Amino acid sequence: MRLLRLASCIALGLGLAAGGARAETFDTSAGPVEVTRIVSGLDTPWAVAFLPGGNMLITERDGKLLHLDAAGQRIEVDGVPAVRASGQGGLLDVVAANDFARSREIFLTYSEPAEGGAHTAVAVARLSEDAARLENLRVIFRMTPTVSGGRHFGSRVVERADGTLFVTLGERGQDTRAQDVTTHLGKVVRINRDGSIPSDNPDFGPGAAPGLWSIGHRNPQGAALDAEGRLWTVAHGARGGDEINRPEAGRNYGWPVITFGRAYSGLPIGEGTHKEGMEQPVTYWDPSIAPSGMAILSGRMFPGWEGDIFVGSLKDDYVSRLDREGDRVTSEEGLFRGAFARIRDVREGPDGALWFLSEGDGALYRVTPAD
Amino acid sequence: MRLLRLASCIALGLGLAAGGARAETFDTSAGPVEVTRIVSGLDTPWAVAFLPGGNMLITERDGKLLHLDAAGQRIEVDGVPAVRASGQGGLLDVVAANDFARSREIFLTYSEPAEGGAHTAVAVARLSEDAARLENLRVIFRMTPTVSGGRHFGSRVVERADGTLFVTLGERGQDTRAQDVTTHLGKVVRINRDGSIPSDNPDFGPGAAPGLWSIGHRNPQGAALDAEGRLWTVAHGARGGDEINRPEAGRNYGWPVITFGRAYSGLPIGEGTHKEGMEQPVTYWDPSIAPSGMAILSGRMFPGWEGDIFVGSLKDDYVSRLDREGDRVTSEEGLFRGAFARIRDVREGPDGALWFLSEGDGALYRVTPAD
Repeated sequence: MRLLRLASCIALGLGLAAGGARAETFDTSAGPVEVTRIVSGLDTPWAVAFLPGGNMLITERDGKLLHLDAAGQRIEVDGVPAVRASGQGGLLDVVAANDFARSREIFLTYSEPAEGGAHTAVAVARLSEDAARLENLRVIFRMTPTVSGGRHFGSRVVERADGTLFVTLGERGQDTRAQDVTTHLGKVVRINRDGSIPSDNPDFGPGAAPGLWSIGHRNPQGAALDAEGRLWTVAHGARGGDEINRPEAGRNYGWPVITFGRAYSGLPIGEGTHKEGMEQPVTYWDPSIAPSGMAILSGRMFPGWEGDIFVGSLKDDYVSRLDREGDRVTSEEGLFRGAFARIRDVREGPDGALWFLSEGDGALYRVTPAD
Repeated sequence: MRLLRLASCIALGLGLAAGGARAETFDTSAGPVEVTRIVSGLDTPWAVAFLPGGNMLITERDGKLLHLDAAGQRIEVDGVPAVRASGQGGLLDVVAANDFARSREIFLTYSEPAEGGAHTAVAVARLSEDAARLENLRVIFRMTPTVSGGRHFGSRVVERADGTLFVTLGERGQDTRAQDVTTHLGKVVRINRDGSIPSDNPDFGPGAAPGLWSIGHRNPQGAALDAEGRLWTVAHGARGGDEINRPEAGRNYGWPVITFGRAYSGLPIGEGTHKEGMEQPVTYWDPSIAPSGMAILSGRMFPGWEGDIFVGSLKDDYVSRLDREGDRVTSEEGLFRGAFARIRDVREGPDGALWFLSEGDGALYRVTPAD
């Protein structure tokens, strides 16, 4: 007889718990919101991308591209290009092409190893149907020159509605070369998906590096389009002077000639804060917060935050909400301050939720209105 | 000038928090495990199904079918059949066909309203590519007879490797009719996907209701296949006598003639616990735990739990792990006792994680080894 009276069995290793919260609730200007950890165990995550159909991609800086689904499966995608994973370099941004549902193509940015060091590169590739590998990978942009060291690669890639790509590029620690139009250092570039240069790009004169859109950036690690399709960026300053900009074609954003920051030595940088022919930032932080990823919310899930800019702080461990009215930022709200470590990327999900990656926690979080 | 010194801004509604856990850790016989809440805000969820590609479906008893993706989008699927949502009836089980990747077909069980009350029904339908609606829905099984009242509909549907479907059916509170082979009350049936009856089904004699596989069940609300493809079920007893069975073709599992339970009045039921021609349960609970969904783990993620049976308790708020050796259950471990309210469904995810639905919390949880 196989019968067993279970009621008299001893429970093994019984986990007793008070049944506490599985998500955290925070008060915000949009009312109470719930922050739920969706993915954990990530190793220095850098970017998250949402795919049509509802799955996600996450880059880890050391060179892994992960595919995640709702059922909790995590696949490491094969065929990612080799990266120079040191300092701030590695596998950086990932974005699904606007036509991903048809093409299954994604864009990656990364620090590509080369003679003399590394440079920021952009690749496009097809994600196989089973998400196991990248196929038909083409490198469509390589920053020049290649520079040694591990600082200021940028980089984010944003696809405009016209199919052209904005790519944000740091100055690799070569500050004055952010003004040198013969290089890609400290620039925003605009390229076509096949790597060619759009014919309506601005003209920076003879000898200019191909693809320049705007110059004089320090290290823009966040970028997003607003509802009108205009580019916004956020860049690291020095000891101060992190900037929000809205880069326009052919303009000069001033680094290192004008800045609201000071050198880490405490000495002033450049010529001050204003100069003819150079643009003022939309807003800036001093001291710096070490801003990384950026999102501009549609308001689909958070109507009160429609059009506002969200930026992750690596240094101060919070998500900044910048109250935006048209071209202006009128105030800042610090969200979740101290609760999550080193916010690396900030995105809007397809349903309008706010998502962020915490490098320190190795985790991906979703923010929704509390029930 | 649009400039604003953000460092001096007042943060609005700043949510300070200690950065506590977003998931709960429990000690178990497989070591520490983490229970993460993946979905919240569900209204009386009944079943969860995993789709190839990584998305999920969840039934809510009142008649909603939800499609969920990793990006947190929750779509209500249109085209679900009308259900009699009262008592224990409503929209019940959901399972993806084994060939879903090609066919996109799913199976649903539900209490279908009809003259005289309701009966358990099984439908197959195609989930549209955008998951917005069910297409080409066919009702492939209807329990007979239709009975009034809201008790004991069952029901789970399990697809065997040969493409036939096991469906577990409660006795609608008509206890003695679980022995009446002219009805589907208190039976397990086996049907083909087109609603026809497999030619190798057992023979219950002239006048038997079509499709019978085994008889004498009370209210089986959990079912799963083991690695050998054999069916296991779990059924509600009365005040005691919840049973785990391994229903074999043509067998009689005894309700209400033999049972280890007593009536809610405290009086004995039937003829005792044993009778010639009637099967003993693999194991039973007395007092009852009100068992619902069941999973048998592959061991992919929890090697120490390979082949073990997991059952959710609605009444005692825990997940039961039944240590299984072949056809025997040798001991029980009570997992997460008291931490989650009314466990309704228990499943293995495609990567081997353990998942469960809490009806009381309105939430879906994933269980993985703690990092």
